[in-house]
Amino acid sequence: MIQITLIQIDNYGPWTVTPGPRAEPDLQTLQSRLYGDLEREFGAHGGIVFFNRFDNLIAVSNGMDYDDHLLIQQSIRNRYPITISMGVGTAETAIEAQKIATKMIQNGGGAQSAERCEILNIDSLAEDEDSFVQIAHIDINDITTNLTDKKTAYDTSIKVYDVLLTLMKELSEIGAMCFFIGGDNYMAPSNNISKDQLRDALKRVDEKTGIRLKAGVGIAKKAGRAADLADIGLEDIRAGLTDDSVLIFNDLD
Amino acid sequence: MIQITLIQIDNYGPWTVTPGPRAEPDLQTLQSRLYGDLEREFGAHGGIVFFNRFDNLIAVSNGMDYDDHLLIQQSIRNRYPITISMGVGTAETAIEAQKIATKMIQNGGGAQSAERCEILNIDSLAEDEDSFVQIAHIDINDITTNLTDKKTAYDTSIKVYDVLLTLMKELSEIGAMCFFIGGDNYMAPSNNISKDQLRDALKRVDEKTGIRLKAGVGIAKKAGRAADLADIGLEDIRAGLTDDSVLIFNDLD
Amino acid sequence: MIQITLIQIDNYGPWTVTPGPRAEPDLQTLQSRLYGDLEREFGAHGGIVFFNRFDNLIAVSNGMDYDDHLLIQQSIRNRYPITISMGVGTAETAIEAQKIATKMIQNGGGAQSAERCEILNIDSLAEDEDSFVQIAHIDINDITTNLTDKKTAYDTSIKVYDVLLTLMKELSEIGAMCFFIGGDNYMAPSNNISKDQLRDALKRVDEKTGIRLKAGVGIAKKAGRAADLADIGLEDIRAGLTDDSVLIFNDLD
Amino acid sequence: MIQITLIQIDNYGPWTVTPGPRAEPDLQTLQSRLYGDLEREFGAHGGIVFFNRFDNLIAVSNGMDYDDHLLIQQSIRNRYPITISMGVGTAETAIEAQKIATKMIQNGGGAQSAERCEILNIDSLAEDEDSFVQIAHIDINDITTNLTDKKTAYDTSIKVYDVLLTLMKELSEIGAMCFFIGGDNYMAPSNNISKDQLRDALKRVDEKTGIRLKAGVGIAKKAGRAADLADIGLEDIRAGLTDDSVLIFNDLD
Repeated sequence: MIQITLIQIDNYGPWTVTPGPRAEPDLQTLQSRLYGDLEREFGAHGGIVFFNRFDNLIAVSNGMDYDDHLLIQQSIRNRYPITISMGVGTAETAIEAQKIATKMIQNGGGAQSAERCEILNIDSLAEDEDSFVQIAHIDINDITTNLTDKKTAYDTSIKVYDVLLTLMKELSEIGAMCFFIGGDNYMAPSNNISKDQLRDALKRVDEKTGIRLKAGVGIAKKAGRAADLADIGLEDIRAGLTDDSVLIFNDLD
Repeated sequence: MIQITLIQIDNYGPWTVTPGPRAEPDLQTLQSRLYGDLEREFGAHGGIVFFNRFDNLIAVSNGMDYDDHLLIQQSIRNRYPITISMGVGTAETAIEAQKIATKMIQNGGGAQSAERCEILNIDSLAEDEDSFVQIAHIDINDITTNLTDKKTAYDTSIKVYDVLLTLMKELSEIGAMCFFIGGDNYMAPSNNISKDQLRDALKRVDEKTGIRLKAGVGIAKKAGRAADLADIGLEDIRAGLTDDSVLIFNDLD
Repeated sequence: MIQITLIQIDNYGPWTVTPGPRAEPDLQTLQSRLYGDLEREFGAHGGIVFFNRFDNLIAVSNGMDYDDHLLIQQSIRNRYPITISMGVGTAETAIEAQKIATKMIQNGGGAQSAERCEILNIDSLAEDEDSFVQIAHIDINDITTNLTDKKTAYDTSIKVYDVLLTLMKELSEIGAMCFFIGGDNYMAPSNNISKDQLRDALKRVDEKTGIRLKAGVGIAKKAGRAADLADIGLEDIRAGLTDDSVLIFNDLD
Repeated sequence: MIQITLIQIDNYGPWTVTPGPRAEPDLQTLQSRLYGDLEREFGAHGGIVFFNRFDNLIAVSNGMDYDDHLLIQQSIRNRYPITISMGVGTAETAIEAQKIATKMIQNGGGAQSAERCEILNIDSLAEDEDSFVQIAHIDINDITTNLTDKKTAYDTSIKVYDVLLTLMKELSEIGAMCFFIGGDNYMAPSNNISKDQLRDALKRVDEKTGIRLKAGVGIAKKAGRAADLADIGLEDIRAGLTDDSVLIFNDLD
């Protein structure tokens, strides 16, 4: 079971324009700092947060309970001009778990409701014995020589976001989420997706975008460890230790 | 003339896996903090930075000279385990300026060259008398009621990134760049794009994605002020002060 | 038993002037960010860090083991241009525990040795059954009306630092450490110091500095909880719920 | 003329205990981040901030005007749960300038007044032609071999704070302020204090504490540059380029 936490800034839209519009560099700083801080807080417990839309962040939070979430929620209130609500769900696939997490937040009220504040709704938590996180770390083959050092910075960006969107759509079809993590890197919480399914999905993205991808996959009880294993898989592919475009390391075998 | 600075982390890819892969939550924190700090540094001089790909950030830097850039470059070296290179270009359109800025960096060496370190190559600077920044702040109509509060968090994200990619492509055709700035918000440095051109581009995005957009546009000598004016324009559209999907405020008239 | 972690930046002095002196605002930012980040990391496990001298920080780390410390050490390496070494000791008093922690670091090499890097030496850890943290939160009576709003900012500072030094000396005599935590506030890890001993120490500080002090004291298994209880004690004294200058709340009774 | 800005968090004491006491690690993080951010903001304009008491920070702000201060004040409001007030004064000595800056803030209301919010009172600004900042960077001779590597961490701290307090008192007698900047380092804005006066003050501190000190002194139009020159002076003394305990570099000669 994968455990997903959806983190949503309370009533953020209205706040950004009250009393008048707030300076954009300030908002960008606020959002990036919030993301960095949440990454530290979840990371200290073996979790990982993805910035997603910055005002709606998505974390893989296996191993974290109600008190862990509550401490984070209070810490944000004590250091930021905004508060956050959280919904938590667990399921066999990442897509299903985020669906439940979303429902948990929506049950608490609207994202732009002035009444909703610091909801913390947990549908269920992954127990240690069935805690299971699969994460794929996907990147583009030879982006530096083919794109970064040859094309303009912005043309490279368009290509990277094209691949992102195509990955998001393809992987959501088979139950995974996919997030951009900078450079030419993507991470996909992908419980219960087989090696064949993933290889085929990467191939479909290649056909649609003309970009060849590879993926290291890690399986562990917590997200941080799964990501570490995924990184090692990716390194081994880069080093030519396999001809396959997908390599899996499983901590739970 | 718009002045664009391309900021690139030196030799970042190899560093992230040396001696072994570094923990992903650490890298995400590093990247978000670097972005937040650069936003403060450029923001202190009236500029704006967009995270773009996190290892390649793009700033609108009108009003900033060689020494301003140098101080930022040294400050990063003193506080981070990585260094940055920068290329600066000015042109009539944002796309053209980033092209020159990219060239300035590429002239200094490859993004994964161990030799290249702290390049600061400036092709030209915008002089005060012809400094001119046009920025559009674009958002989605009624996203909270139509998407955030109804769909799953991830389905909303797919839609938001779909709009982003379509905007990136459409606007690059007419000389503008477009960046995601969180939530359902996008910012487009868009010098020399007329109201009609912008309205038509938004319409084409609507046709392709089924999402209706609006844009406040600001024109000023510096990016921060242009963004402030764009925000006010967007607020006025939201408030129903105009029926148009685009509203421009020009500080230089 | 109180568990103390001494955190020391490796070879920091030489680094700050290599190749030439680094800009002071950069160093101040680096130090304050490092302090803030360590506070988050230890705080996520129920600990507390005091900035002490910024390049030598002192944490109360009951409940944290080798792996918890290692993860923090690696995270700093991945995000800062410097590395840290840590020594851990446990004892009946805070002074004794820091003495052991210091020894653990010194065993690893000198603070300005280029060879020493990322030492993590643990003499012993507090087991859950005998984990015990006593923290006093001390502040100055009526500082705002008597000093801040009347004297110059700097004269107030001299007084606050005078009280700090006198507290540091008096409390070290009876086995406690004392740290400045901002404003007119001090925190003293003070295991095995009785209410009478503490009241007498505050009185001696009063006699030497002319400043009246009060102290809320918390006792718990971890530092964060002990500090929370100390805060409540201090609030109750402020609210006039007791005439005593010291109030203790004990979670372990 | 030296220009001093006193920065005070509005109504901070009451906020820290409303509705109940806020967690100390959160407050320590808030304070250290605020300090780091203010250091960046003032640093971007050539200024320097000292943390002083964390809720009352003191900056040397020559070269910064009303708008520069206002932008910082607004940025803090947009990113923190608290707001700041600022008072600015200029004078021949640092002590006199902070006295005026304090008065400017006190005129706006009490530090714990719920009514006072975001005061920005400027008595006067240093004009470019008479802008003049003298800063001394003072450190302890051979602290690593004599103290850090031999004594316990806390005994070293007591000594370092003993020297701090003695410096604060001695230097305030002759018109300078002195701040702890970490390690065994102190910085003293010290306009119009001669080399002889400073050497004598260091000698008096030595006699009272048994600690030998040295000082590099920089003089420039702005604080950042003055601090850089002070650092070079200190390095030259360390390198044995002079036998004097004080070395001055003057950018304005």
